[in-house]
Amino acid sequence: SKRYTITLLPGDGIGPEVISVATNVLKLAASLEGIEFDFQEMPVGGAALDSTGLPLPAETLSAAKQSDAVLLGAIGGYKWDKNEKHLKPETGLLQLRAGLQVFANLRPAIVLPQLVDASTLKKEVAEGVDLMVVRELTGGIYFGKPRGFSVNENGQEIGFNTEVYAAHEIDRIARVAFETARKRSGKLCSVDKANVLEASIFWRKRVTAIASEYPDVELSHMYVDNAAMQLVRDPKQFDTIVTNNIFGDILSDEASMITGSIGMLPSASLGESGPGLFEPIHGSAPDIAGQDKANPLATVLSAAMLLKYGLGEENAAKRIEAAVLDTLSRGYRTGDIYSAGNKLVGCKEMGEEVLKSV
Amino acid sequence: SKRYTITLLPGDGIGPEVISVATNVLKLAASLEGIEFDFQEMPVGGAALDSTGLPLPAETLSAAKQSDAVLLGAIGGYKWDKNEKHLKPETGLLQLRAGLQVFANLRPAIVLPQLVDASTLKKEVAEGVDLMVVRELTGGIYFGKPRGFSVNENGQEIGFNTEVYAAHEIDRIARVAFETARKRSGKLCSVDKANVLEASIFWRKRVTAIASEYPDVELSHMYVDNAAMQLVRDPKQFDTIVTNNIFGDILSDEASMITGSIGMLPSASLGESGPGLFEPIHGSAPDIAGQDKANPLATVLSAAMLLKYGLGEENAAKRIEAAVLDTLSRGYRTGDIYSAGNKLVGCKEMGEEVLKSV
Ligand SMILES: CC(C)[C@H](C(=O)O)[C@@H](O)C(=O)O
Ligand SMILES: CC(C)[C@H](C(=O)O)[C@@H](O)C(=O)O
Repeated sequence: SKRYTITLLPGDGIGPEVISVATNVLKLAASLEGIEFDFQEMPVGGAALDSTGLPLPAETLSAAKQSDAVLLGAIGGYKWDKNEKHLKPETGLLQLRAGLQVFANLRPAIVLPQLVDASTLKKEVAEGVDLMVVRELTGGIYFGKPRGFSVNENGQEIGFNTEVYAAHEIDRIARVAFETARKRSGKLCSVDKANVLEASIFWRKRVTAIASEYPDVELSHMYVDNAAMQLVRDPKQFDTIVTNNIFGDILSDEASMITGSIGMLPSASLGESGPGLFEPIHGSAPDIAGQDKANPLATVLSAAMLLKYGLGEENAAKRIEAAVLDTLSRGYRTGDIYSAGNKLVGCKEMGEEVLKSV
Repeated sequence: SKRYTITLLPGDGIGPEVISVATNVLKLAASLEGIEFDFQEMPVGGAALDSTGLPLPAETLSAAKQSDAVLLGAIGGYKWDKNEKHLKPETGLLQLRAGLQVFANLRPAIVLPQLVDASTLKKEVAEGVDLMVVRELTGGIYFGKPRGFSVNENGQEIGFNTEVYAAHEIDRIARVAFETARKRSGKLCSVDKANVLEASIFWRKRVTAIASEYPDVELSHMYVDNAAMQLVRDPKQFDTIVTNNIFGDILSDEASMITGSIGMLPSASLGESGPGLFEPIHGSAPDIAGQDKANPLATVLSAAMLLKYGLGEENAAKRIEAAVLDTLSRGYRTGDIYSAGNKLVGCKEMGEEVLKSV
């Protein structure tokens, strides 16, 4: 039987609740395929700040690096909002992404037939949406230098950041995006702001260069402002989207809300080699933390992505995906996706129902 | 009788058609209030590139500067898409904004009762949306230096830009936003990415400092990724939004699409003093240019903003706004906002109907 080491990073807010559910589902689905796990739980984010004074303790990063995959809950909360930048929970997450060198963030946004009513978009617009945002995750303005605070030549205080991409950073994310598009409908839309930004002109140039390696994939380009509109106007026009770190942050959240069920959406962050990082798209939801109200399905589906993209265990992944669909078809809903005629359940009960369906 | 000089910049694509309609409406509405105009038409964007080799000829900028207000159609088109940055039509627009120092871009997004069906959002979500995005327009990553292309310490080619804000740039846009919010419902939401970017941390600090001058306005802060989601989830939660140049570009376009009728939405760009710049939010739509299909109402409503914000002529502005609503109530629709049961008209005929309603 196969054995993998998984680092669990519950984090803050609803993180521990959803990680607990997802871990149980992961264990059961994998065991049915003869897979076993060693789990190691480590602190990150606000939880790590409280216990160690740092948002990403060295032990957490080195445990994560030595494991086969990392499953993260959520990080952040009001309590640490006023912290200085290097002591913000979010900084721990950014350090983790950088430390694991997971430059490719895959964020599917799918409108499930069972949940089409959850979208604020009209049924005919939302129905059938199935897109994948491939977001660059370890470069751009998130990590660019110089950055900070200073005083300019007029004696004015300033705050500044640098949006910067090197050729190899664009090339590698473009390849992931082309590979992804190839496995899907063969359409890739690269989003930038090349009518204004040099970083985007360069992005477009490199993506276009890499396109020659993928003659079977149809590449188009779109400005980010237009993409933000088109996602609302007609999300079905998109299949795979590739974009930089900050535009990907914005557009993937917008796309996730178009599905109406951000509590359902997983993500995978992958590097060239080494363990991938898997986490739900949603945040730590401090307002409902510890109340057994959170929707664990985004984390459960992140565990499925962990199996598929992180370990290459497609069959176990499919078991989880099928179990989630089955549970929804049986009418179980957490509050965020509840609609009349269904059964309202909490985080734990949702987990139990998914286990029954595995 | 009062007399003003207006610079008309038709620009590219559908620009000339919509400017022609808007100018006629502007003339008539103003004349009923005893206002007369001297119009001077100048080239900008692709049209200026073709005739002078520059996207913003010096004559155009100086004419604009010496007038009381500037009305712009649209700029850009496939023809000039491959031009180098300094020869892009868009660069002409950026130079115009910078030259006129119009740092405050007001972009209303209103769902008119007559057009609620045009939105892709469900009726109960779209109905009643009435928000104003106040976008910083002459700073941030659009204009920040250093910028360009280079080679990094590893010998890799790079493309880069600088996101930078000085205190006075944030202070002045914040004041415009607080004043705007004060005249509306008294709620201001400042959008940034202060959990990651120093430029945003500084933005939030300055906006918070300026808030003390406006104790009657309720200030909140939101991360840009969350704002992109919330606009889809529940746009009615927003009244006035203030944000930087690039986030404003993205969010105002998203907000405009939420109304379902980007062909309806005007904008005003204002400085401390000097003429304002008024333009529709939509682009040059090269695919329908010259076909008498464009919706001129965004430009007509931009002319109303010109009267109100540019010249302080509220009564004449109200005449235009009322005429547009009346024309819609009488069932006239261009293709972009057409729904069954209404009368489909072209750009010119829409203009004639609005003139009847003035
Ligand atoms: C928490 C924050 C730093 C993070 C980001 O901006 O990347 C989050 O919004 C995300 O998208 O994963
Ligand atoms: C045409 C382009 C340069 C411009 C911008 O990005 O500001 C446009 O998108 C806008 O929003 O007015």
